[in-house]
Amino acid sequence: MSQLFANLFYQAEVSEIFSDESHLKYMIQAEVALAKAEAKVGVIPQLAADKIEQVATQQGINALDIESLSIAAGLAGNVAIPFVKQFTAAVKALDEDASRYVHWGATSQDMIDTATILQAREALEVIQLQLQHAHSLALKLAEQYRSQVMIGRTWLQQALPITLGHKAARWASSFQRDLERLAQMKSRVLTAQLGGAVGSLASILDQGTAVVEAYASELNLSTPTCTWHGERDRIIEIAGFLAIVTGNTGKMARDWSLMMQTEIAEVFEPTGKGRGGSSTMPHKRNPVAAASILAAANRVPALMSSMYQSMVQEHERSLGAWHAEWLALPEIFQLCAGALARTNEVLQGLEVNADNMHHNLEVTHGLIMAEAVMMALAPKMGRLNAHHLVESACKKAVETQQHLQEVVAKMPEVQAHFSSEDLKQIFKAESYLGNIQDQIDAVLNEAKGVAK
Amino acid sequence: MSQLFANLFYQAEVSEIFSDESHLKYMIQAEVALAKAEAKVGVIPQLAADKIEQVATQQGINALDIESLSIAAGLAGNVAIPFVKQFTAAVKALDEDASRYVHWGATSQDMIDTATILQAREALEVIQLQLQHAHSLALKLAEQYRSQVMIGRTWLQQALPITLGHKAARWASSFQRDLERLAQMKSRVLTAQLGGAVGSLASILDQGTAVVEAYASELNLSTPTCTWHGERDRIIEIAGFLAIVTGNTGKMARDWSLMMQTEIAEVFEPTGKGRGGSSTMPHKRNPVAAASILAAANRVPALMSSMYQSMVQEHERSLGAWHAEWLALPEIFQLCAGALARTNEVLQGLEVNADNMHHNLEVTHGLIMAEAVMMALAPKMGRLNAHHLVESACKKAVETQQHLQEVVAKMPEVQAHFSSEDLKQIFKAESYLGNIQDQIDAVLNEAKGVAK
Amino acid sequence: MSQLFANLFYQAEVSEIFSDESHLKYMIQAEVALAKAEAKVGVIPQLAADKIEQVATQQGINALDIESLSIAAGLAGNVAIPFVKQFTAAVKALDEDASRYVHWGATSQDMIDTATILQAREALEVIQLQLQHAHSLALKLAEQYRSQVMIGRTWLQQALPITLGHKAARWASSFQRDLERLAQMKSRVLTAQLGGAVGSLASILDQGTAVVEAYASELNLSTPTCTWHGERDRIIEIAGFLAIVTGNTGKMARDWSLMMQTEIAEVFEPTGKGRGGSSTMPHKRNPVAAASILAAANRVPALMSSMYQSMVQEHERSLGAWHAEWLALPEIFQLCAGALARTNEVLQGLEVNADNMHHNLEVTHGLIMAEAVMMALAPKMGRLNAHHLVESACKKAVETQQHLQEVVAKMPEVQAHFSSEDLKQIFKAESYLGNIQDQIDAVLNEAKGVAK
Amino acid sequence: MSQLFANLFYQAEVSEIFSDESHLKYMIQAEVALAKAEAKVGVIPQLAADKIEQVATQQGINALDIESLSIAAGLAGNVAIPFVKQFTAAVKALDEDASRYVHWGATSQDMIDTATILQAREALEVIQLQLQHAHSLALKLAEQYRSQVMIGRTWLQQALPITLGHKAARWASSFQRDLERLAQMKSRVLTAQLGGAVGSLASILDQGTAVVEAYASELNLSTPTCTWHGERDRIIEIAGFLAIVTGNTGKMARDWSLMMQTEIAEVFEPTGKGRGGSSTMPHKRNPVAAASILAAANRVPALMSSMYQSMVQEHERSLGAWHAEWLALPEIFQLCAGALARTNEVLQGLEVNADNMHHNLEVTHGLIMAEAVMMALAPKMGRLNAHHLVESACKKAVETQQHLQEVVAKMPEVQAHFSSEDLKQIFKAESYLGNIQDQIDAVLNEAKGVAK
Repeated sequence: MSQLFANLFYQAEVSEIFSDESHLKYMIQAEVALAKAEAKVGVIPQLAADKIEQVATQQGINALDIESLSIAAGLAGNVAIPFVKQFTAAVKALDEDASRYVHWGATSQDMIDTATILQAREALEVIQLQLQHAHSLALKLAEQYRSQVMIGRTWLQQALPITLGHKAARWASSFQRDLERLAQMKSRVLTAQLGGAVGSLASILDQGTAVVEAYASELNLSTPTCTWHGERDRIIEIAGFLAIVTGNTGKMARDWSLMMQTEIAEVFEPTGKGRGGSSTMPHKRNPVAAASILAAANRVPALMSSMYQSMVQEHERSLGAWHAEWLALPEIFQLCAGALARTNEVLQGLEVNADNMHHNLEVTHGLIMAEAVMMALAPKMGRLNAHHLVESACKKAVETQQHLQEVVAKMPEVQAHFSSEDLKQIFKAESYLGNIQDQIDAVLNEAKGVAK
Repeated sequence: MSQLFANLFYQAEVSEIFSDESHLKYMIQAEVALAKAEAKVGVIPQLAADKIEQVATQQGINALDIESLSIAAGLAGNVAIPFVKQFTAAVKALDEDASRYVHWGATSQDMIDTATILQAREALEVIQLQLQHAHSLALKLAEQYRSQVMIGRTWLQQALPITLGHKAARWASSFQRDLERLAQMKSRVLTAQLGGAVGSLASILDQGTAVVEAYASELNLSTPTCTWHGERDRIIEIAGFLAIVTGNTGKMARDWSLMMQTEIAEVFEPTGKGRGGSSTMPHKRNPVAAASILAAANRVPALMSSMYQSMVQEHERSLGAWHAEWLALPEIFQLCAGALARTNEVLQGLEVNADNMHHNLEVTHGLIMAEAVMMALAPKMGRLNAHHLVESACKKAVETQQHLQEVVAKMPEVQAHFSSEDLKQIFKAESYLGNIQDQIDAVLNEAKGVAK
Repeated sequence: MSQLFANLFYQAEVSEIFSDESHLKYMIQAEVALAKAEAKVGVIPQLAADKIEQVATQQGINALDIESLSIAAGLAGNVAIPFVKQFTAAVKALDEDASRYVHWGATSQDMIDTATILQAREALEVIQLQLQHAHSLALKLAEQYRSQVMIGRTWLQQALPITLGHKAARWASSFQRDLERLAQMKSRVLTAQLGGAVGSLASILDQGTAVVEAYASELNLSTPTCTWHGERDRIIEIAGFLAIVTGNTGKMARDWSLMMQTEIAEVFEPTGKGRGGSSTMPHKRNPVAAASILAAANRVPALMSSMYQSMVQEHERSLGAWHAEWLALPEIFQLCAGALARTNEVLQGLEVNADNMHHNLEVTHGLIMAEAVMMALAPKMGRLNAHHLVESACKKAVETQQHLQEVVAKMPEVQAHFSSEDLKQIFKAESYLGNIQDQIDAVLNEAKGVAK
Repeated sequence: MSQLFANLFYQAEVSEIFSDESHLKYMIQAEVALAKAEAKVGVIPQLAADKIEQVATQQGINALDIESLSIAAGLAGNVAIPFVKQFTAAVKALDEDASRYVHWGATSQDMIDTATILQAREALEVIQLQLQHAHSLALKLAEQYRSQVMIGRTWLQQALPITLGHKAARWASSFQRDLERLAQMKSRVLTAQLGGAVGSLASILDQGTAVVEAYASELNLSTPTCTWHGERDRIIEIAGFLAIVTGNTGKMARDWSLMMQTEIAEVFEPTGKGRGGSSTMPHKRNPVAAASILAAANRVPALMSSMYQSMVQEHERSLGAWHAEWLALPEIFQLCAGALARTNEVLQGLEVNADNMHHNLEVTHGLIMAEAVMMALAPKMGRLNAHHLVESACKKAVETQQHLQEVVAKMPEVQAHFSSEDLKQIFKAESYLGNIQDQIDAVLNEAKGVAK
């Protein structure tokens, strides 16, 4: 999209993969693979394939004039038609005979779809690395902050204590699942497309099957059982995976941007020159990375709606629905990579303010520990009695603006069972963390089991 | 988006309005208006405003370095922060004192929102012209083909006859409503934004109200009753209008692409070199414009989902949700303008094949006229009898593969009332068009009443 | 949808309007209007119309068997086909002759579309009342809290002070615009539909136009210039209006749910038995209304994507796209009404904690007033000097954990110009509210000007 | 949703699974599993668990009053809070002591999420069966019509011949991938949820981990490494899978509805009483199933947008975003099952009109075979010469309205190489099908390899 927004929303490598130039580069790669496959099978002369490859190697996209290509695409309805013309002309300039064999038997969509899959493969490599990095950063936070107590919040209200490491472990666990999804999906979706006009490769006569196999092998893509010009589930599956990853990062960005609120101030995005500060509002620490990730997490879902809609394609090759993919898929890839890049920056440089976490645990003057007190009293006096006692203590604490611990400490029923030191212990958030350490361990162990 | 797709999906003028350069140009315009307004009210020296305007006039966006601006935007979280820095530096190079008054009292969002409204205004001018053109082209088709009989289709099945002019009149009527919507919306949505950090213009002390009025007046925008940094309904209303327009064009494109099917072949997009043809499939006439419009009509709805979602903004100025607008709104504008441009090309150059329309009316061998026959017989023999008779005639026609007229003509009950010449008349599609001419007239008359 | 969720997400009156029973009731109303219109014009006997009306009046939807209707709808592809059959049978039981004139000349879609418009009209009446109520409640809050100072927040960070009344005024202003939108839209969208199979009303021969007018007049709907079976912009415009309203409420719900956070605690949804509390977490005050509204504001945008997509309809009457409307439009209406109902409950009973607002203004120890201090110093020592001085004061305040006022008070440059009393005044949030009162007045005045 | 639409859009078993009653039934199942797990681990008395199970077994949802539950849910913000109250009361009526152990240590979301997963598991079982059926029906069509030649269409234009079996094989192949996706996803997503208020199970003290394992085992769900109240990727993954399946059916429905067009008439949905016919338009054969499927394929993508958006959840448990799931997921499940049910009806009963397929192959008077002719001539006269010759022949055929075969047959260059009989063979669509048979075999073979 616009250069102005490139550094705000995207990630350089993935944006490069989806640039106009790269798209054409991948189409050239597909044409070369086609020629080589057809030469190997004997459909076209080896010499022609050599010459075609020579043009690709020596000239690359310099063989093309993007501006006139763009104009012609507007008339032709896709980029591949003028691309093939220009590329053929470049081959013709080298070897007229070879130029007759360019794009032999293929249709525009074969080249566009294959180029798209090649782009997807390369971009998924980047995203896999980003995900692995995100995963290991989140695991590191889980370990580092496994005992850093903080308040857990539900419905935006303080609830009970957790640790920051538990939050990070939950994040890590979502990245683990994303990596599994990616691994399971790859061979199914990274598939060559070659079918000619209607998917039959009729103009290659009886050698179509051999050519498709050689072509896929040349590109190191899986061979489809049948052409998939009109059955777009592979493309959608890729996009759906990216949307889940983006959503996972959006959840995290929401968390840390809420935790960065001035009144909460528990964690912060890493600082840096020109980053989120304000000269006239010196106390501000804008969650700049979160803004960008949340924009992606708003936008990718909508683009997915466009992608799923585009599955309703007509007959052997569609109009309109197929076109809609061209705009949505690259944008989804770029937003996902951008969101991951920013997430990793934050996970890497997250600033944690333990004092404020401690301070926020005290905001309710002990009310968040009411359940802990009740659980401590229950074995002594029965759960129901404990419940009533704590309820009345809470009421009193609120009315008299005392700390719950103070109120409870004065109650004879409590004094009967607990010393002041006992109570102090009960009111410690650290004492009421349930099986959080087990969960963190489980996430860390699961990660060890993954050979990535 | 990508240059490769510019001529396929967009429209040059509107894309230009939403280019990076234009966005910055409109931000400069907003800064100049701010300085002039503040000088007028006496908040800043007139000389400072003059110098600021001078830099804008003489250097325009050359005062800025887009590449470094883009990098800084990635850190700052929006484009306006580094923009103000660069623009201030350019003013400083001319006049250090004046540079202190650049962006006086404003916040980044004031400039970005105002620039967005200025872009929207200019782009809406283009779109209004496109709509007026579309409207008059559709009216012309309505008039020209008011009696061009063709089959009407429901659920993709042949139903009863209509005329091509009726279809065009219905299209025209949707453009008429779009023009009304635009006219009603303008003063509400084309509104200046100026509120400073939290909407109070506090740093302008007690002159905020006067400055906002002068600023809006300078830009010829309406003055808001209050700042709207967080209340985005204006932006969404604009986008929603564009989405309706795009949907209206999508409906038309669906219609004509279906009518262009090889087996139907009633209308065609205008031809042209490099346009939708195929050398190895000489009979093909790809609906290239329709593909592009249908892609827009798939994509804009999804982008609207993003826009509506982005209304849920936090507090005085939001993060993430606001950012999401920046990507969606320009894309919606460009796709709408692109869809209209292509629609107008087709409405202007639509090729109509009257022979095929006639031919298709005969595909069912008279069955489409069954209702007409029944209506003609009803006054003679009662509606129920007529119904039964026609039903059995239809059944026989299908079984014996005869034309319904032939079957009916042989029926004594029919012969009793109608001559062969009568029957011929009854079976003419032209005789069974209901109030279509009235409807076309109503649309034409309504259009006359509109002073655009 | 499910009864379980009815009280969570919807509003009883509007849900009733979109119940199965009501949908059928409105279809009966359309059939009666059709019969009366046709009798008036002389197309069918007056007696037949009388009998049809009699069945409608005496039996209403008891004339129908919803269960068998539902099964038949699954086969027929829409509800109207079996509906007409059942309704005709009911008329036949009273008067066989009259039953022949039921649904005369109309098509299924005429009845479904007209019933939809009738539902929309009635539901829009409810929503208009809700909006007027919301508007006046927000205006009341604007007035009541016009001077209730609180911190303004941008990017989820504390920024500068505003008043709660200003926030409410901004909310009120969005409701004002919604009411304008509704008023402008009504006559355009509340339009009768009557066209027969392909929009020509051919079976009514030369009286179609008169019948449409009488029909629209009977229903008190506007008369369309032409049939709009395939041009759905009216339906979409209604839905788009509702989506803007829902988005506006979502913005408010986001605001107050954030302000209800335990650490912020500035406002609260009204309490009530069984409402948002938790026995084991006595400090919790769940923003239950906000949750419901935010769910609507997540969901309606997605449904709008479905609506806009559905504009791409085929030919004279579509399949699939039209069907998609049936599910989305009622849901949008119900969610919008539900969101408004909950918003009004909260606006009506909003609890405001002024102490916490005051407390939160102090969280940054005066840093939020840095700009105010600078603006006060600027006239004395020049803006640049003031800027440098305040910047260094802020730095010192942060480092030494002192209140900014304390630090500033000790600075000789400040002492030279301001007494301790002056400084106290400068640091008051109330002194730095810019033109907020003007804005509140403008919103209140604009509201007075509206004759609703 | 509405009963009126139940038979149009949904599938009875899956709708039953997502009924209010079932939702509550699954919540009861979760409560029982919780009690049994806690008894097993020794957290609560075995007797209490027995009594809880007894109430569930004996009373089921009769223990609950749905109407008052619905009202209370509106206040509480979710269904589980009043559900637990009512269920506890039912247990209390049997055994007061046992009632104290109902829902021990759990939070509302544990029950709602687990119930959702249980619903999903059962509904996925139905959908898996539907998919297997769809797969085998499509395979059968692939085999049956592997040589049934028809025209292939691209961009809605006739292109080159294919066979109907090839189309069916491509459909089958998408179902095969869907089945693979489902198999890979199950263990990852069908996971128990149990975490208490913030995911720590603190009130179960040090036995949380053992209880979660016993609970998951009791329900035969996988045990999560950590709670996932706020990490919703599992739910989204399920929905995304369903959306792909729905999209795949949408593609097929688009295909057959286009093939059912009156002018094309190659295949038809199975007939049946009350199904898609029209008494006044006897030639109509409405694609009723397609309309329903296409509506689902319009709607599910939009609902997915809502689902992906809802991933952005706050902290340990969210508001609003979580609520949005409750409406979208059941609707997606029901629409997917409805679309599959209708697809299977059509695949099972598809009527194929071979005559019309043959007829349509002749619509272009041989032009669709131009490439085949060129390929036949190329070895004789060189590809370029062949190309020019065929191009001029096509031009002549169009101008003179002759069949291309006639034109070609008269050309001396052709006569030199081919007899009239040869030409007849070349012009047979059957001769130009490329590797279609190989592709069909590949799809059939792949299916054999799948143990479902």
